[in-house]
Amino acid sequence: MTSLRSWFHIPRGSHFSLANIPFGIISTASSTSPRVAVAIGDHALDLEVFAANSGFSGLSPIQPHQAVFSQPSLNAFAALGRPTHSVVRKYIQSVFSENTEFPDVLKNNESLQKQALIPLQDVTKHLPFKIGDYTDFFAGMNHAYNCGVIFRGPQNALQPNYKHLPVGYHGRASSVVPSGTPIRRPNGQILLNPTAEKKEPILSPCKKLDIELELGAFVCGSNEQGSPIPIDKAAENLFGVVLMNDWSARDIQAWEYVPLGPFNAKNFGTTISTWVVLAEALEPFKVKGLENDGNVLSYLREKDEKSVYDINLQVDVKTLSGHNTTISKVNARNLLWSFPQMLAHHTITGCPFQPGDLLGSGTISGDSPAAYGSFIEQSQNGKEPIRLSGGDMRTFLEDGDEVTIRGVCGEDEETLVGFGECVGRIEPALELKFD
Amino acid sequence: MTSLRSWFHIPRGSHFSLANIPFGIISTASSTSPRVAVAIGDHALDLEVFAANSGFSGLSPIQPHQAVFSQPSLNAFAALGRPTHSVVRKYIQSVFSENTEFPDVLKNNESLQKQALIPLQDVTKHLPFKIGDYTDFFAGMNHAYNCGVIFRGPQNALQPNYKHLPVGYHGRASSVVPSGTPIRRPNGQILLNPTAEKKEPILSPCKKLDIELELGAFVCGSNEQGSPIPIDKAAENLFGVVLMNDWSARDIQAWEYVPLGPFNAKNFGTTISTWVVLAEALEPFKVKGLENDGNVLSYLREKDEKSVYDINLQVDVKTLSGHNTTISKVNARNLLWSFPQMLAHHTITGCPFQPGDLLGSGTISGDSPAAYGSFIEQSQNGKEPIRLSGGDMRTFLEDGDEVTIRGVCGEDEETLVGFGECVGRIEPALELKFD
Repeated sequence: MTSLRSWFHIPRGSHFSLANIPFGIISTASSTSPRVAVAIGDHALDLEVFAANSGFSGLSPIQPHQAVFSQPSLNAFAALGRPTHSVVRKYIQSVFSENTEFPDVLKNNESLQKQALIPLQDVTKHLPFKIGDYTDFFAGMNHAYNCGVIFRGPQNALQPNYKHLPVGYHGRASSVVPSGTPIRRPNGQILLNPTAEKKEPILSPCKKLDIELELGAFVCGSNEQGSPIPIDKAAENLFGVVLMNDWSARDIQAWEYVPLGPFNAKNFGTTISTWVVLAEALEPFKVKGLENDGNVLSYLREKDEKSVYDINLQVDVKTLSGHNTTISKVNARNLLWSFPQMLAHHTITGCPFQPGDLLGSGTISGDSPAAYGSFIEQSQNGKEPIRLSGGDMRTFLEDGDEVTIRGVCGEDEETLVGFGECVGRIEPALELKFD
Repeated sequence: MTSLRSWFHIPRGSHFSLANIPFGIISTASSTSPRVAVAIGDHALDLEVFAANSGFSGLSPIQPHQAVFSQPSLNAFAALGRPTHSVVRKYIQSVFSENTEFPDVLKNNESLQKQALIPLQDVTKHLPFKIGDYTDFFAGMNHAYNCGVIFRGPQNALQPNYKHLPVGYHGRASSVVPSGTPIRRPNGQILLNPTAEKKEPILSPCKKLDIELELGAFVCGSNEQGSPIPIDKAAENLFGVVLMNDWSARDIQAWEYVPLGPFNAKNFGTTISTWVVLAEALEPFKVKGLENDGNVLSYLREKDEKSVYDINLQVDVKTLSGHNTTISKVNARNLLWSFPQMLAHHTITGCPFQPGDLLGSGTISGDSPAAYGSFIEQSQNGKEPIRLSGGDMRTFLEDGDEVTIRGVCGEDEETLVGFGECVGRIEPALELKFD
């Protein structure tokens, strides 16, 4: 077996150990065309350059795969399928392994090291996929329950359908942005006095701007319109996982959402982390999700009970005062439905998928306030301010707040499988002048 | 002014008179690469061939535009903007006009006529755009009211937000198909007894498969994330209009839609007509929509009160017995919100648009059953069967039913601006075997 210790310097505690090998799209000041790379320690390995310099010579026949590394998205690579992703990942692990079978490829090739290994700080990271369609689910049962309690009370917190199907809605693919992109506070219709008899909305900057701590999964397979993806085949159609912050305008949502669901409250920005952790890298961290005591129909029943991930997630907020506060720590196992179940349900009607389609998990919350994945839960929809380091108080986000989501699997600092960061900072709303 | 009589034979009553010039994507048995064309009478004018044979020589400088006609979608042509669409449309009208200034381009050029003018019956029509995102609105107020009455009674038929904003939801772009594509009845979760205390869904072929008579509008402009498109600029960002049938699974919808809106009930297929009628061709048919007695906020207020279209719409159903019934006739002016208002509202948050994004109007219904644009309204959610020609009865669609939507503007048979047809036939559900 390939040793996961490397001849290359990978800092202890790096999210991008040899056990990981996440894929992304990078460019650099000297080479501005976006292309495929993997992250290793504090570096990106530029796979376009690596492939062009016989980097894959140890893998034969690899020729058909090289062109995909020059693409500005992972769509073409993803479309090759999970067996190919596995071969490429394992080969890269073997090239970097301390006991590599292929020392001449990179270990003893200083010239290629200089060309292909780029410090992450010198790299611009792009959206990893050209996203065809984006769907956001609601599989975080604690979040669904907490929101239900806020709006309907504890008796009717979960809707009758909740344990029977993964509730979801179609999102806005064009609004998904890579980590680091500023998020402008949206304007929209809100009610200043939601309980008043007469409902007269105003146009206003959102006053209840929230985060949603989620995971996203990119699809690598496809199905013809009219042909479902069965639950047993669903996992092989999933490329990998990212962190996601589905920014939400709670006041816009509360006014607009009947009867067709959230719309403008969700389409101004969704941030994802830029390194996609392959499904294969997450295999060792599969665990059982939340217990479903409903009667799950057979098209959603999984053979493998371990179908969600043991990922330690954390949300930090840094305010303009410079103070940082970790507002939430929660494990990603807090999901009632897995990504394979979401895909099987989504396609049961015959809805067609393409490589690059994105599924969001829904907000992941634990069972205590310090593990809630949104402000609406933490502040009880604005009623109970959260105290941050440095004395700042928050019910929802203020301009200048920077939110960082981190996620990591494993305990051993030399074999962490992490996601890096998913960061966004709130910019003030645009001043609108219409009259 | 260019005469709208042509030297070329355009049958009286054709939807594709010289007053129209709709754009689409075609291929043929002898030339299988999809490319841009316009429809004229019973023919398609292949613009790739036309451009390559100096068809645009009367227009200078046209060179930069010719490449867009070899594309497999209208996205690149649309992105050139409405002033360019206008120049190209007017030039094609002038080439076909009986008193054309450019007789040598086509009128006296039999060779090019043979190459570029293809009988429509020999043409395969494709999806006109590569659709980035698809949004479906709910702007047909009579439909919204009728459905509200069915589910909530007449007192609360329209939700409080209805007259303040164009309610909409994000749809599934991948499921939009061109006219003629068969639609497979979806499987999904339904409740056999929705009023029972205990809600136990089954997996079943949809038993309440419905149509939605809509218009679709394709966007040609774009906006940066965070920057709204103001209402005064919205119209110039709209390329043109198609007919749309947003097939709907009412029983799946009723169970799944709380609290995040319709999802699987809508993502198995949406049919659009294949010839996109340019916004410019519809200018003479602009009319005032339904009166909005709500307090419309300024970002949604239009200078031009005439912002919807006087289009006579008709829905026909042909059953397996071979009998055809016109089940609905309704005018497209039955909308509370216009496409420019939908676009201004959709982007008020900063939601980004790209050429090729699609907006659906929502179901268009008149104020009497013979003008309702869906079966759920016509049959009162299944309670009152509709009698079809030949004695067939329907509450919702049965397998083998073929639904055709037609739409046309104008009265003069020589200058009609029509949309052709939007057709789909229901195929039986896939038999699923899981256990």
